[in-house]
Amino acid sequence: MINKLTIIGVGLIGGSLARALRKTGACKEIVGCGRSVVRLQKAVALGVIDRYDTDIATAAAAADMIVLAVPVGSAETVLRQLSGHLDAKTIVTDVGSTKQSVIAAVRAVFGNVPGNFVPGHPIAGTEQSGVEASSAQLFQQRRVVLTPLPETDTRALNKVRAMWQQAGAEVVEMDARTHDEILAATSHLPHVLAYTLVDTLASMELHADIFRFAAGGFRDFTRIAASDPLMWRDICLANRVALLRMIENFSADLNQVAAVLRDEDSAALLAVLSRAKAARDGLNNS
Amino acid sequence: MINKLTIIGVGLIGGSLARALRKTGACKEIVGCGRSVVRLQKAVALGVIDRYDTDIATAAAAADMIVLAVPVGSAETVLRQLSGHLDAKTIVTDVGSTKQSVIAAVRAVFGNVPGNFVPGHPIAGTEQSGVEASSAQLFQQRRVVLTPLPETDTRALNKVRAMWQQAGAEVVEMDARTHDEILAATSHLPHVLAYTLVDTLASMELHADIFRFAAGGFRDFTRIAASDPLMWRDICLANRVALLRMIENFSADLNQVAAVLRDEDSAALLAVLSRAKAARDGLNNS
Repeated sequence: MINKLTIIGVGLIGGSLARALRKTGACKEIVGCGRSVVRLQKAVALGVIDRYDTDIATAAAAADMIVLAVPVGSAETVLRQLSGHLDAKTIVTDVGSTKQSVIAAVRAVFGNVPGNFVPGHPIAGTEQSGVEASSAQLFQQRRVVLTPLPETDTRALNKVRAMWQQAGAEVVEMDARTHDEILAATSHLPHVLAYTLVDTLASMELHADIFRFAAGGFRDFTRIAASDPLMWRDICLANRVALLRMIENFSADLNQVAAVLRDEDSAALLAVLSRAKAARDGLNNS
Repeated sequence: MINKLTIIGVGLIGGSLARALRKTGACKEIVGCGRSVVRLQKAVALGVIDRYDTDIATAAAAADMIVLAVPVGSAETVLRQLSGHLDAKTIVTDVGSTKQSVIAAVRAVFGNVPGNFVPGHPIAGTEQSGVEASSAQLFQQRRVVLTPLPETDTRALNKVRAMWQQAGAEVVEMDARTHDEILAATSHLPHVLAYTLVDTLASMELHADIFRFAAGGFRDFTRIAASDPLMWRDICLANRVALLRMIENFSADLNQVAAVLRDEDSAALLAVLSRAKAARDGLNNS
């Protein structure tokens, strides 16, 4: 049981966590914190949180658990506001899509990574954002990655793991660097490709016809380009080393496909497409 | 009313057209033609076609309308088998995803483009293939592009238009070159990007973890990479000039995004993502 859970940033992820935990009765009280009173009032009206507090020090006081659910680019600012207001026993975790950058922010603010800080990332979301889009089901059968450090307190880790399990998620652990490499490949690169493709097409002379004749496959392919640009700017910058490496790998492979096309090398082209289809079909069976 | 409709290639598209037309009673008889007796028997068993004929000359004899629904790479071979067996009044149309290449194949076989040949392309499909995946609903509210030439007979054009309208589609006309440019942008490039991305990730050391942690966004983004590799090899080769131009445009834009990331140019990055989101949101409202 969590007596007081404070969620800083009651958007899609923070709001969905609150909804899921309220549903299971895992918390006595869920307090929202954020900059926009209007949005916090909406979260209360929607029944997502019990109450809100715009003062971060008051919101944090006597909390068992604080969840940072702000864009990764804001993590350091919020941690700085929190520092000095954390009880010794308060556990802090986050939901950022990049883990090395959040850990670096913690180090920058606290000088080290406190044992009570557990870096985390629920691999869930939609292209929508905001508390209106939040859902108690968002984490059902989704994975949450925790990236504890050697100095992470085991009790804190166990409490964060238990919280996510109560929200319906499967919790796995890995180191922050591996997390960031995997996410660069499966999430950050695809987002960059989708945003770039839409931007490429939007700048073409035929753009009106292009969007008019876009069929279902194109809509699925570019859905993630409707995601929040501010959030994705932060993620791309925060994980830019791993992401740039992935863009390089991808570009090299795309150049190779272009070369095969230019040469009309039918066998080589079929080999790439067949290999990719086999790998994608494997995903359906996993 | 079509007395005898012959569909050469009873797969996803040919089968779906047959189902849609049978449902509306637009044809007296639908005859399937293809190389695989097993698949044609399945099409009869599924109630997709009335009967089949593996001999293309017999299948074509006295047909009011022949629909070529084979991969674009097979168009010329099939047209060659048809030539000499076409009644003067038989209308021939196709469903190929590339139009200039099919028109070139017609010219290569007949020396010119007969007035009764109407190039067409239904912009519909899924990543699945085969008659088992066919559906009478596939063309509902989808667009079919016809790309008539100056020499195309108006009566033939009207008959093909009417057939697709009876199948539930909205029919539009444009020239073949514009069609190929638009499809290179909205369909062929996205397929190449999806296939390439999956292949890039599959070749990485972390590939097992990468596919394990792929979330919903990744699945949507790469769904089209499960499409039939043979069909897509043909399409890529047939439309390679327009496709290579699109790959070049996209690569230049991706390099630009990488440069912005490398420079940590937050404002420029946000500008690209915001522009793309606005364009993608526009698609939802269209």
